Amino acid sequence: MHSQSSEKASPIQTAESFDVVTLGETMLRFTPPSRNRLEQADHLQVHIGGSESNTAVGLARLGLKTTWLSRLPSTALGRMVSGELARYGVDVSHVVWTDNARLGLYFLEEAGPPRGSQVIYDRSDSAISRMTPDELPRSLFEANKLRLFHTTGITLALSESTRETALLAAKLAKAAGALISFDINYRSKLWSPAAAAQHCQSMLQLADLIFIPDRDIQTLFQLPAVDEPERALETLAGRWPHATWVMTRGRTGSSAIAHGTFYVEGIFASDEVGRLGGGDAFSAGFLARYLESHGDVASSLRWGAATSALKYSIPGDLPLMTRAEVEALVKNNSPSTNISR
Amino acid sequence: MHSQSSEKASPIQTAESFDVVTLGETMLRFTPPSRNRLEQADHLQVHIGGSESNTAVGLARLGLKTTWLSRLPSTALGRMVSGELARYGVDVSHVVWTDNARLGLYFLEEAGPPRGSQVIYDRSDSAISRMTPDELPRSLFEANKLRLFHTTGITLALSESTRETALLAAKLAKAAGALISFDINYRSKLWSPAAAAQHCQSMLQLADLIFIPDRDIQTLFQLPAVDEPERALETLAGRWPHATWVMTRGRTGSSAIAHGTFYVEGIFASDEVGRLGGGDAFSAGFLARYLESHGDVASSLRWGAATSALKYSIPGDLPLMTRAEVEALVKNNSPSTNISR
Amino acid sequence: MHSQSSEKASPIQTAESFDVVTLGETMLRFTPPSRNRLEQADHLQVHIGGSESNTAVGLARLGLKTTWLSRLPSTALGRMVSGELARYGVDVSHVVWTDNARLGLYFLEEAGPPRGSQVIYDRSDSAISRMTPDELPRSLFEANKLRLFHTTGITLALSESTRETALLAAKLAKAAGALISFDINYRSKLWSPAAAAQHCQSMLQLADLIFIPDRDIQTLFQLPAVDEPERALETLAGRWPHATWVMTRGRTGSSAIAHGTFYVEGIFASDEVGRLGGGDAFSAGFLARYLESHGDVASSLRWGAATSALKYSIPGDLPLMTRAEVEALVKNNSPSTNISR
Amino acid sequence: MHSQSSEKASPIQTAESFDVVTLGETMLRFTPPSRNRLEQADHLQVHIGGSESNTAVGLARLGLKTTWLSRLPSTALGRMVSGELARYGVDVSHVVWTDNARLGLYFLEEAGPPRGSQVIYDRSDSAISRMTPDELPRSLFEANKLRLFHTTGITLALSESTRETALLAAKLAKAAGALISFDINYRSKLWSPAAAAQHCQSMLQLADLIFIPDRDIQTLFQLPAVDEPERALETLAGRWPHATWVMTRGRTGSSAIAHGTFYVEGIFASDEVGRLGGGDAFSAGFLARYLESHGDVASSLRWGAATSALKYSIPGDLPLMTRAEVEALVKNNSPSTNISR
Amino acid sequence: MHSQSSEKASPIQTAESFDVVTLGETMLRFTPPSRNRLEQADHLQVHIGGSESNTAVGLARLGLKTTWLSRLPSTALGRMVSGELARYGVDVSHVVWTDNARLGLYFLEEAGPPRGSQVIYDRSDSAISRMTPDELPRSLFEANKLRLFHTTGITLALSESTRETALLAAKLAKAAGALISFDINYRSKLWSPAAAAQHCQSMLQLADLIFIPDRDIQTLFQLPAVDEPERALETLAGRWPHATWVMTRGRTGSSAIAHGTFYVEGIFASDEVGRLGGGDAFSAGFLARYLESHGDVASSLRWGAATSALKYSIPGDLPLMTRAEVEALVKNNSPSTNISR
Amino acid sequence: MHSQSSEKASPIQTAESFDVVTLGETMLRFTPPSRNRLEQADHLQVHIGGSESNTAVGLARLGLKTTWLSRLPSTALGRMVSGELARYGVDVSHVVWTDNARLGLYFLEEAGPPRGSQVIYDRSDSAISRMTPDELPRSLFEANKLRLFHTTGITLALSESTRETALLAAKLAKAAGALISFDINYRSKLWSPAAAAQHCQSMLQLADLIFIPDRDIQTLFQLPAVDEPERALETLAGRWPHATWVMTRGRTGSSAIAHGTFYVEGIFASDEVGRLGGGDAFSAGFLARYLESHGDVASSLRWGAATSALKYSIPGDLPLMTRAEVEALVKNNSPSTNISR
Repeated sequence: MHSQSSEKASPIQTAESFDVVTLGETMLRFTPPSRNRLEQADHLQVHIGGSESNTAVGLARLGLKTTWLSRLPSTALGRMVSGELARYGVDVSHVVWTDNARLGLYFLEEAGPPRGSQVIYDRSDSAISRMTPDELPRSLFEANKLRLFHTTGITLALSESTRETALLAAKLAKAAGALISFDINYRSKLWSPAAAAQHCQSMLQLADLIFIPDRDIQTLFQLPAVDEPERALETLAGRWPHATWVMTRGRTGSSAIAHGTFYVEGIFASDEVGRLGGGDAFSAGFLARYLESHGDVASSLRWGAATSALKYSIPGDLPLMTRAEVEALVKNNSPSTNISR
Repeated sequence: MHSQSSEKASPIQTAESFDVVTLGETMLRFTPPSRNRLEQADHLQVHIGGSESNTAVGLARLGLKTTWLSRLPSTALGRMVSGELARYGVDVSHVVWTDNARLGLYFLEEAGPPRGSQVIYDRSDSAISRMTPDELPRSLFEANKLRLFHTTGITLALSESTRETALLAAKLAKAAGALISFDINYRSKLWSPAAAAQHCQSMLQLADLIFIPDRDIQTLFQLPAVDEPERALETLAGRWPHATWVMTRGRTGSSAIAHGTFYVEGIFASDEVGRLGGGDAFSAGFLARYLESHGDVASSLRWGAATSALKYSIPGDLPLMTRAEVEALVKNNSPSTNISR
Repeated sequence: MHSQSSEKASPIQTAESFDVVTLGETMLRFTPPSRNRLEQADHLQVHIGGSESNTAVGLARLGLKTTWLSRLPSTALGRMVSGELARYGVDVSHVVWTDNARLGLYFLEEAGPPRGSQVIYDRSDSAISRMTPDELPRSLFEANKLRLFHTTGITLALSESTRETALLAAKLAKAAGALISFDINYRSKLWSPAAAAQHCQSMLQLADLIFIPDRDIQTLFQLPAVDEPERALETLAGRWPHATWVMTRGRTGSSAIAHGTFYVEGIFASDEVGRLGGGDAFSAGFLARYLESHGDVASSLRWGAATSALKYSIPGDLPLMTRAEVEALVKNNSPSTNISR
Repeated sequence: MHSQSSEKASPIQTAESFDVVTLGETMLRFTPPSRNRLEQADHLQVHIGGSESNTAVGLARLGLKTTWLSRLPSTALGRMVSGELARYGVDVSHVVWTDNARLGLYFLEEAGPPRGSQVIYDRSDSAISRMTPDELPRSLFEANKLRLFHTTGITLALSESTRETALLAAKLAKAAGALISFDINYRSKLWSPAAAAQHCQSMLQLADLIFIPDRDIQTLFQLPAVDEPERALETLAGRWPHATWVMTRGRTGSSAIAHGTFYVEGIFASDEVGRLGGGDAFSAGFLARYLESHGDVASSLRWGAATSALKYSIPGDLPLMTRAEVEALVKNNSPSTNISR
Repeated sequence: MHSQSSEKASPIQTAESFDVVTLGETMLRFTPPSRNRLEQADHLQVHIGGSESNTAVGLARLGLKTTWLSRLPSTALGRMVSGELARYGVDVSHVVWTDNARLGLYFLEEAGPPRGSQVIYDRSDSAISRMTPDELPRSLFEANKLRLFHTTGITLALSESTRETALLAAKLAKAAGALISFDINYRSKLWSPAAAAQHCQSMLQLADLIFIPDRDIQTLFQLPAVDEPERALETLAGRWPHATWVMTRGRTGSSAIAHGTFYVEGIFASDEVGRLGGGDAFSAGFLARYLESHGDVASSLRWGAATSALKYSIPGDLPLMTRAEVEALVKNNSPSTNISR
Repeated sequence: MHSQSSEKASPIQTAESFDVVTLGETMLRFTPPSRNRLEQADHLQVHIGGSESNTAVGLARLGLKTTWLSRLPSTALGRMVSGELARYGVDVSHVVWTDNARLGLYFLEEAGPPRGSQVIYDRSDSAISRMTPDELPRSLFEANKLRLFHTTGITLALSESTRETALLAAKLAKAAGALISFDINYRSKLWSPAAAAQHCQSMLQLADLIFIPDRDIQTLFQLPAVDEPERALETLAGRWPHATWVMTRGRTGSSAIAHGTFYVEGIFASDEVGRLGGGDAFSAGFLARYLESHGDVASSLRWGAATSALKYSIPGDLPLMTRAEVEALVKNNSPSTNISR
């Protein structure tokens, strides 16, 4: 249903299908304007951010039918999250609404060097941390109802029940014939490297596509990814040979290994105004192209690079580029400025 | 499809159904802050407004599955309109997108007496004014796909092709077994009373529910509605006996006549911050209750009154109350304040 | 000249003429938004305010060709004042620019009861306080170059040289055949009642039209104007029989006496958002009508009342109504709202 | 210490003394501008609010040396609270800072009827909820170091350890010869009436001054305060005869009973822009006058009424009136407007 | 007259003269703040922009008496344009006001790479597009009333009647002994290269000074200006030998040819915040110096470069530098910072 | 006392002690947002700035107990200054309040090249310019009550009585065993080089630590500091051998000489958003470390460099970095970003 007070209406309902189903937490983000410190601010700008929903927005902007599964409080705050996602084309009709829970929040101070950007998370005990496997909308996970399921390591880290929910979703999706995409996305504030390495095992076994930032390869698998990306990927592919591994390397670019073949891509230069969400935008670009090209890893990396570069030029966490902008950048490697006509 | 660049993806698609299908124009609205004059403003607040989409938002907020049909330019401006509607729960997946057209706009100066609020419309030659009957999504108008179709006299006034489109939609809906709701909503800037009276004829013949402001009864039908509302309604019901007529009477309240029975309702007091959109909110409240109660006119009038009163207390044109607020107001006739717990 | 760096260009120049020439101080005004206290504000809204320039703006908005004489610092602050006046149609090409001077400022906290609005003036030693008679543009004061000269008691209070300048301007204007208009506008922060009474004498002798708030009649002339307005005016007219006296009486209305005839006018109800500048707006409305009607006091009072009522509904000190709004209010006594067409 | 990283410096330190010591929770408050709904806002205004610190600010503005005890996270958010209090004159040098805790928050939608203002609290598990008795700065509670200690029922409701801390503070203060002031301030979202009634017992035994809203008298003590305020107060004074009871009665006024004498006070009319914090402002006005007058209940009620009326006219929760404004209101019953000089 | 409701007053009127008379369209510009996308914005900043009025503002800021001819709707929107120009010193007393027309608008998204800035124009059927030759104020085009007339190819492109109006203005100005300045300024959204080349012929024959961006030389005349600027200019000068040709070359600088002499100038480095309007600022700087120096092309190029560099550092389309800033930059090639005194 | 209306309360008072006592003027600063020109702004951001109070804020943020002595008007403007300082941890309880005085102001236009930032000062005749030696709080200058006294040449330049007050403060502090810190900080708008050189003599004799920008060495002492910093410092140290001289050299770094030893430090790269106040931040970092290390000049220079670099990345004049940020920068030479955990 399209709102949390849904029992009343809609007598006639038919099952929907989606290109991509995502599952994860989305938080409200509060940011002081114009690089002020939080202590200087008399008002804060409101955005939303969450790894899976960032990717979902990117996929929707690129033309894929995408839904986001989560659990939200039945308050104006919960509606701010679902409304913002719907505004940018993500289906939120399968969100679970609850009366007694809080929404995760974070406060972001954007800064240039030598002052570093600062985040204060306030996400403990959020509504999704109590999500349970039985709250999954089973009808979404039937055959031909979805092409790909995407989640991240953050969701696995939130709580045991959230982790079980995500794992069940992946299994159901797999059984329905869909691809499984998993972004490891290690968060040291949520769990230890050891816990992450252990609890990601089942998902890594299920995943067809695995995204990993190079820093996490070192942290979780003790592989020197920064200096020897090819070797690190080969080792990972040796352990999980069924999966395509995609490694994002910050301002260095990205690499991938699939069925023994190694791929490399650079980055597109960007005048950054919003660094958060770049990795999620990369996943969106990669996945959109991957689904459309039926598995062309090289061009998917390039789409990932273009999408994340465009995202960096946009305030907030969401990759609000258009498909035309990605296509122009991939094709021309130049901005599609449109001023002087 | 959920965005204007839709040809690419989504292999699997099933037909949707809706409680209410609406059709009409939505414009961007620009308003100077804090009762400043336009000439004083260095920035303008952006809202959206359009009679049918205002009503659609109200219906969605009240829990009904609602879609809005229209034609928008494939630009950021068009996406601002569709995004804002989606944000508040209205389905926009059947909007027609076009490359070469402009979006209607209006500028609103909000003022208190003796200065009157001023609107400057800039809506000529908008994308929807070139909408044609063949652009209607036929699948929506099949049996069991919709319960009610709603449009207004504004849509009929925009252009001949828009009018034909709206009429075809009403006929298709009627044929599919749905109710037809029509708000006359006369706009002197769009057409003359004579033209309106003439071109509304077909729609009045089709309509099951007709909303009309009392001032329009005088203007279009030369009936003295202000002083003798009951008699005016009886005359109208005499001419179009198949329809339920609902007359909104500003701060006096509302009346209706249905199958020979006359109904009267008052208003709920409101601390007004946004007068625009009150009539559309009334329609939303009325229709939501009418569909749920299977035709209880008395309680539908009361829901209309409550919904419009709540809308007056909210900035912008959209009725962004919650269902709980309407229910509490209808039941207790008092605000559901929730501060001091 | 139209800017302060004027020596360079413009080889060909012809003398201009004006309906009204005004002379006085204009300050920058700083106001915290939304009724916040100054101590709560992290930004302040910038307006300009000055009795004579407020009136000049009103006259220009009503269609009269109006110039404002003053002395400003050659800085961005000075240009903010002249630019804002030019924006609303007042000629500022005869302003005297100076390199070493400050601009007068004031800080306004707007408040509702029981908290009263507060003003902190910071106007000492402003550029105009050192204006001298020889800085007057003599070409403006030739025959047929102006119809009316207007200034206020504030200008007389600023400094001795400013007072001499204003008096010379009035004498030159009188000699050129123009009417002299003088608003007593007593300011207790600038001088004592005794000083005001003494130093206004020459101007009162020159003036054809004298505006006075009822409270000043008591303060300066010890006449009980509040209770017995007619008698107070008669006494004043007895002392200065050549002048038409116009008394503004706040929310009670206004009265006037001219050639032995007594006039009374009420007020138009207003939803006030900006109380400052109402008296200056009154003068603008009165003078515009007075010049157009060639001395019809009764209708001039009515125009004054309408213009000030409209001003109260507009933020800031300037009477930014339109001529059409004044005409509609004078005629219909109702706001010219223009929303629902 | 004056900041949370205090161990480093300040070799020389002497003990301070205060007129009033307060203890309680202060939260960040987020409010959408201009009566918008939260769902409409793209930025939120930041204020702080907390019953005891609201009162502390009022006391400091009225000239009393006041400190606020609490426990805050060592983050920018915690510093936003302490900084804002320091800005308005409250001593925050005894706040306990902690590394691993969150700050309580709330979201306020301000609205006029029929829409009611809404608050969403998010205060669970805040830093102060884990405050323990041993974190009290004992040096503050020595003889001659304080004249009055003030806290509220909210602090007692936060957690058992917070309650024990508040009780110990009251006992220490009493032992040091100070007066104990307690505002019952029942919060139904924090505990049940039964729990409140039980856990307030010890504090009621200690308190010299007890503030109670009339609605709480009914809720906690089953006394019909609204209709029979005098009788309710007599009953309460019968049970706790050592205390002066002050009952606030919203827009009806206030009453008190002390040593068998009954006092009544009305309200000062107010153009309300911020209703929250009015009761805390009342306490501030009452306590300031009570201390200065050495126990004059009648004039203390009047100061309470004036202080709360002024607070209603100020945005935010804090009573940012000046002492001069309170004195003028108490004396003249009229706003001390200061515009036209 | 100085406002659109001008028939009433001003009995005495004498003819004015100007250094420069310009003719063209000015639009309202709407920009989201802080590099947000339009879709993210809840308010838009309002500026004005139009090639000829941008240049007019630059000329006025540099001390030249300048008027702007155009046709505007008699609404607050039209007054926003004229008011803003008057604020910065441009005479708008000869603007033609009309009741039934719209104002051209455009929406600008400012962005850094790889996202390009985007403009959405909405200028069709604007008031000026129906301007006719008989609406020209003939008194301005008499001998000794103007020194230079300036317009651009945009004005020629708007409509046939606008083109005829501009051509007549140029002919009248020529006949009155004034210089004719023409900026080709090709706009692909308004007409084709072929149409532009054809319809600019008459103006090119009349023009004494012709400005052309290097990209237009290629587009309109098929000359490879980027690589061989000297040769392209020679070719153009061969065809239109009576004119001085000035070619702006973006970040490369500018060149000119006059009476067979070739001139080259570079650029001044700029920290760009507003790229739009740089070419118009260049024209302003060039023309101001050209008129003052009686035809010194070399120093005029340098003034053009300085003026446009300063404009790039200022938000909005208008060249709001001061004459002192231009002079200092031309002289010292360094910013005239004035902070630490 | 902690507010200007202080006579009433606080019967018990004990003497406080401070690490640092500062004395100087603080002004309100008005800045247009987003690099707009003042002439473009409809609101101005409010900050405070003053050399000594900037340093005081830095010291307080670094953990030192710091008080600021000055003289302020008893208005909301004066309270804006004291409140802002208190908010960031500076003690303001010894400020002298006065009823009849104005507050110094300045207007800052922030700009990038080729447009230079511009400051318009409006500080004449401010409250502190009439401060007299007898207004110093003597109790602060007793033995063991302070460790260091800091002022600047600006304070000496304000007026003769201010200069005498500062000198007396320095003498009292010296007598009490405290260090004297003096930042020469020449301001050409306040006095001539000759006057500065003469009137700084007494303070240079008293000072233990002297800060001087390299440009002032040339201006005041005719020493070529830019090219030969070591030699200039040696010469200065030769004249005033008792003092440690610290020379700030803008983007080149800093140098110092103490007891015949020469020290050099570079800068930390910074993404500048607020250049004003960098020198004052340097002093804060230097002094904090100097006091903690008991005179380690080398590490104090490094702390100065780190503190000023962090300040440059923060809007406004105040060095609102945290101690942790300074420590991390000094230690790691890299920002302490904290985003992706």
